[in-house]
Amino acid sequence: MSHFRAEIAEQPEVASRLLAQGADAAMSIGERIREVAPHGFLIAARGSSDNAALYAKYLFGVRNRALVTMAAPSLFTHYAHPPRLEGQCVIGVSQSGESPDVIAVVEEGRRQGSLTLAITNEGDSKLARAAELVLPMHAGPELSVPASKTYTASLLALALISQAMNPDPVFESALDAVPQAIARTLERDTELHALVPPLTGPRAVVLGRGFNFSTAEEVALKLSETSYVLARAWSVADFEHGPIAIVEAGLPVLIIDGGGPVVSDLESVTERLAAMGCHVLRLFDMSGLPEALTPIPLAVQGQLLAHQVAVARGMDPDRPRAIHKVTRTW
Amino acid sequence: MSHFRAEIAEQPEVASRLLAQGADAAMSIGERIREVAPHGFLIAARGSSDNAALYAKYLFGVRNRALVTMAAPSLFTHYAHPPRLEGQCVIGVSQSGESPDVIAVVEEGRRQGSLTLAITNEGDSKLARAAELVLPMHAGPELSVPASKTYTASLLALALISQAMNPDPVFESALDAVPQAIARTLERDTELHALVPPLTGPRAVVLGRGFNFSTAEEVALKLSETSYVLARAWSVADFEHGPIAIVEAGLPVLIIDGGGPVVSDLESVTERLAAMGCHVLRLFDMSGLPEALTPIPLAVQGQLLAHQVAVARGMDPDRPRAIHKVTRTW
Repeated sequence: MSHFRAEIAEQPEVASRLLAQGADAAMSIGERIREVAPHGFLIAARGSSDNAALYAKYLFGVRNRALVTMAAPSLFTHYAHPPRLEGQCVIGVSQSGESPDVIAVVEEGRRQGSLTLAITNEGDSKLARAAELVLPMHAGPELSVPASKTYTASLLALALISQAMNPDPVFESALDAVPQAIARTLERDTELHALVPPLTGPRAVVLGRGFNFSTAEEVALKLSETSYVLARAWSVADFEHGPIAIVEAGLPVLIIDGGGPVVSDLESVTERLAAMGCHVLRLFDMSGLPEALTPIPLAVQGQLLAHQVAVARGMDPDRPRAIHKVTRTW
Repeated sequence: MSHFRAEIAEQPEVASRLLAQGADAAMSIGERIREVAPHGFLIAARGSSDNAALYAKYLFGVRNRALVTMAAPSLFTHYAHPPRLEGQCVIGVSQSGESPDVIAVVEEGRRQGSLTLAITNEGDSKLARAAELVLPMHAGPELSVPASKTYTASLLALALISQAMNPDPVFESALDAVPQAIARTLERDTELHALVPPLTGPRAVVLGRGFNFSTAEEVALKLSETSYVLARAWSVADFEHGPIAIVEAGLPVLIIDGGGPVVSDLESVTERLAAMGCHVLRLFDMSGLPEALTPIPLAVQGQLLAHQVAVARGMDPDRPRAIHKVTRTW
């Protein structure tokens, strides 16, 4: 079994461990954030972690009414004109904790006196040392190049922080149900078989909206990294605003459906695409989690699907062409 | 001649008119912003206008040391949990001024007491009426569905506001040189012919970084809308972090090069891609403008190129499949 597939399977255990071992750290991070009362959150991240940051934009927006900004790291590294960060909480998300550009953003935040937080799987990494606060993912070593367990762990870490900022017993119970929701998702692996053949071509479109726009980006990235499909994600609204022009009969379009108030948009685009002869595929959530947490089981479905597509195309998902586990972008 | 091609050609005149007729409005907007001294800027936009917002993220970051956040409109429209916007300057960018989701973000900003600004080609639109401040683009009616002159006008409008916030005589002279830079770019139309054949296939990658990451997104959008190529833009750093795995011999990769401190990244990815057998294409700037303004002539090159690709594929760029001039996403 590939590392990628083995680590996908570890996720119920990783989530349970993070809930057990991360709860206290998240609580004191939440207290510190409430004390500082930042104007907003600036998140620096790359790749899968950037998709986790996109999730935080919706999660912190809806649950905490907080404004989330995605950092443009080159302002910090190339242009030497970092923006003023007074009053921001600066968060770096990095599995390895060794991405120089993510570290540079957090270091600048600290220099400017902002509250800084690292979410990383390596509690002794440079990123962890740069930040005032650290929430370790407790995911164990990740050997596969495409991230799986560290992605869902970073989502869960962000959800723990959101809950610590604005505690709510209903959301607390939902968090506790995450490991079981992942386990049930893993059992449905074979149900994804039917989606594989349309996704073995040169290109694919992945659509989501709201919370699961982040999942659409993450599934597109996984398909690209493991199977070399040029998969492009859009929010449904952005897609219908222009890029829908590319659609033609037979184009595979994968829709990420986690329920909630965006469902009518997903249904209406599905009808349009079906009428245009697209091959419309769908990942939908059956976990019973609230929409705000469905990006976790839906990302797991996406990982399972990317793994199946890679196997169907005869590729080794542990060894994507041209990339390495720690990419030192600057 | 198509509306699209005719409106591409109008851009020197549009830029001159905006410089002449928009300068006073921009100056008083700049004064009002300095008076309010916002913590940051929240920009709501869709499609091409969203790429203009991405440009502002770099421009306001480098020139004004201001933090720019891209709005997630569904927080305002679907989830009914808009983030707290105290201290933000909320900007809506929309050619038509009629996008309900962009208007919803600006209305919420106003409700929360934020400074609000509309950048629109329709000075009497709903968006213009919703905002406290308005900078009209003065671009004249845009009949083509794919935006051209309103895209560069929105970039120039943002540059005028940046200059009004932090005046600088060197940047002032560079702004005055924009119409001539566009005119010279238009003269180089035939030099783009060689790039057309590799871009007539089903997919393409477009890369930029820093200021011209926005141009990469815009060129990818133009290619998708006019020629139905699935064109995907990445910043070079994000691309090398993972998606570079999709690269294979013959894949067309278009690099947007506006000079500046990101050039070494563009050169190093070019070498990697060439070694992998990619068809590496390049749009480079010869205008002599500072890097911060090269997204204007480079976007014009991208429009000319998209037009040529559409013609080569026998498509009518004025009538993209499935989309309309005003897309009422919500």
